[in-house]
Amino acid sequence: MRAAIYNEPGDIAIEEVPKPEIEDPNDAIVRVTYTAVCGSDLWFYRGLSDREEGSRVGHEPMGIVEDVGDEVTSVTPGDRVFAPFVVSCGKCEFCRKGLHTSCVNGGSWSGANGGAQGEYVRSPHADGTLVRVPDRHADDEDTLRSLLPLTDVMGTGHHAAVSAGVEAGDTCIVIGDGAVGLCGVLAARRLGAERIIAMGHHDDRLELAEEFGATETVAARGEEAVERAQELTYGGANHVLECVGAASAMETAIDVCRPGGTIGYVGVPHGVDEEGLEVYSMFGDNIGLRGGIAPVRAYAEELMADVLQGTLDPSPIFTKTVDLDGVPDGYRAMDEREAIKVLVKPQR
Amino acid sequence: MRAAIYNEPGDIAIEEVPKPEIEDPNDAIVRVTYTAVCGSDLWFYRGLSDREEGSRVGHEPMGIVEDVGDEVTSVTPGDRVFAPFVVSCGKCEFCRKGLHTSCVNGGSWSGANGGAQGEYVRSPHADGTLVRVPDRHADDEDTLRSLLPLTDVMGTGHHAAVSAGVEAGDTCIVIGDGAVGLCGVLAARRLGAERIIAMGHHDDRLELAEEFGATETVAARGEEAVERAQELTYGGANHVLECVGAASAMETAIDVCRPGGTIGYVGVPHGVDEEGLEVYSMFGDNIGLRGGIAPVRAYAEELMADVLQGTLDPSPIFTKTVDLDGVPDGYRAMDEREAIKVLVKPQR
Repeated sequence: MRAAIYNEPGDIAIEEVPKPEIEDPNDAIVRVTYTAVCGSDLWFYRGLSDREEGSRVGHEPMGIVEDVGDEVTSVTPGDRVFAPFVVSCGKCEFCRKGLHTSCVNGGSWSGANGGAQGEYVRSPHADGTLVRVPDRHADDEDTLRSLLPLTDVMGTGHHAAVSAGVEAGDTCIVIGDGAVGLCGVLAARRLGAERIIAMGHHDDRLELAEEFGATETVAARGEEAVERAQELTYGGANHVLECVGAASAMETAIDVCRPGGTIGYVGVPHGVDEEGLEVYSMFGDNIGLRGGIAPVRAYAEELMADVLQGTLDPSPIFTKTVDLDGVPDGYRAMDEREAIKVLVKPQR
Repeated sequence: MRAAIYNEPGDIAIEEVPKPEIEDPNDAIVRVTYTAVCGSDLWFYRGLSDREEGSRVGHEPMGIVEDVGDEVTSVTPGDRVFAPFVVSCGKCEFCRKGLHTSCVNGGSWSGANGGAQGEYVRSPHADGTLVRVPDRHADDEDTLRSLLPLTDVMGTGHHAAVSAGVEAGDTCIVIGDGAVGLCGVLAARRLGAERIIAMGHHDDRLELAEEFGATETVAARGEEAVERAQELTYGGANHVLECVGAASAMETAIDVCRPGGTIGYVGVPHGVDEEGLEVYSMFGDNIGLRGGIAPVRAYAEELMADVLQGTLDPSPIFTKTVDLDGVPDGYRAMDEREAIKVLVKPQR
């Protein structure tokens, strides 16, 4: 089979690799029909985080179950499934409390399981990891495009909104106009926020934010952006969704958060250690920080129900579609901000 | 009148200063009968934070109202009152929501208002700042000793417990065996915590923690302490009270917090900026951070009710009592950890 491989910063290649096989009675093999390139993939693509040379990439699989181990009970061959960006057993303390990212038996797609940007992927703990799409929706391409973001960015945007404590009638600020930020806007609207102020740097993405429910947008940078957001909220919002992860974005989040408010942060932190959090501002203003790596498995059924009933559709974030051979070009397009998020179709 | 003055690190002196007068119709003048030396005073005493030379010190006043401005309605001369470590108007958005430390009209005791370690202090915004002790308790010295910590450390320990989300039946870890940590133990017990693990470095203080309700104590340091706390909790507690403020204490708090748990932090951050928060650990484990400078005014009535009915008594933290001339010795005793907290009686 063929799959995407990371060689070095800027170099993703499609290579022949062994097709995965059932190794454990809890495994399933999934023929990958849809997957995506993630903003977090750009960190290693840009050389900003380490990644093993020659390693498989991709962590947002959707496809058709081809084979299952003897102990798998929730899916059977032929089922349409998708899976979050981490593997989870579904049975441990943390899975039971909805914190699947801390699963004691969990793991990532990039290790022995292979990446999702390939023709097949092996899912360990298939019962705990895979989410089955109901049969009547299993072959509708539009629905599948709308469900695919639930593997990562939509669940992550939702985690930001939940962590920031967004409830009906609230005013919130969403930092970042990437796929996660845009999904954060959708999530905040879904939770009933009355005012959603989207902050970003790209006019086209902020336009999409408005389509997604942002009531106002701030396109300025730095101090000017902070001032504008504070003006709009008369001194900051009680709920801030930090959807970037860069130290500067966290700083902005703290600066636009109202005293006593909460920042829901979901962007993988980069540079925050070096530059330090503005702990004094947070301390003086009693600003809370909640969130972290999003347990998107916990949100999958709830968000899927909305997608299937037609009240949630994050698919406009996919502004480019490629086949497996197009994956390197997909990384390039996202790196150059030509695409918000790239949908990949490895197999029919 | 006479008052304590900060000269330079290690040098506190008692000097003659002008007696304060009513300057604004919302002011009150309080004859200070009890006050205290705070652990946070040690930061400037040790030269670890800046403080203006010749400035008045002390921020935990209790005493008798001597005079009030024309617009003061809640207290009259002769009333016994105490006040939190910050001034608050009681009327703005933040005071109304219980975040008096973010009062838009607020301020500290160390500026023009004079410090609390002196014979008299001027309270601006007397209606919003001063807490009146009911007459029937107003002259009972034991009661007043028990109420005095509500000016700062008891409200701060309570804020740590509330911020950490401690509720009935919970297991929590309290980091720090200073006055705030000990009050955190009292607060956690008061909120119904079932297991309270106190971590510190001083056997005598950990004994007091046990008297206050700690069910277990950890006296080890560094990695050993973390391992011991994790063993006791089978992997960390969901509720951690960080009552120190040093970067190493925050690191310990993160290390002993269970994935998905919450750290309530109230220690004034020192060195956290330089050393950086372990944001990656927090992110990966979805550990929340709540708290900050404690709005103790918000908790005063609730905690006073418990003190007056005899179910809350933080007064054992006062292990040394001095008069105004003894204040420099009080700082020395706290700096050398000879006293947990020093009670000061500037006037009869």
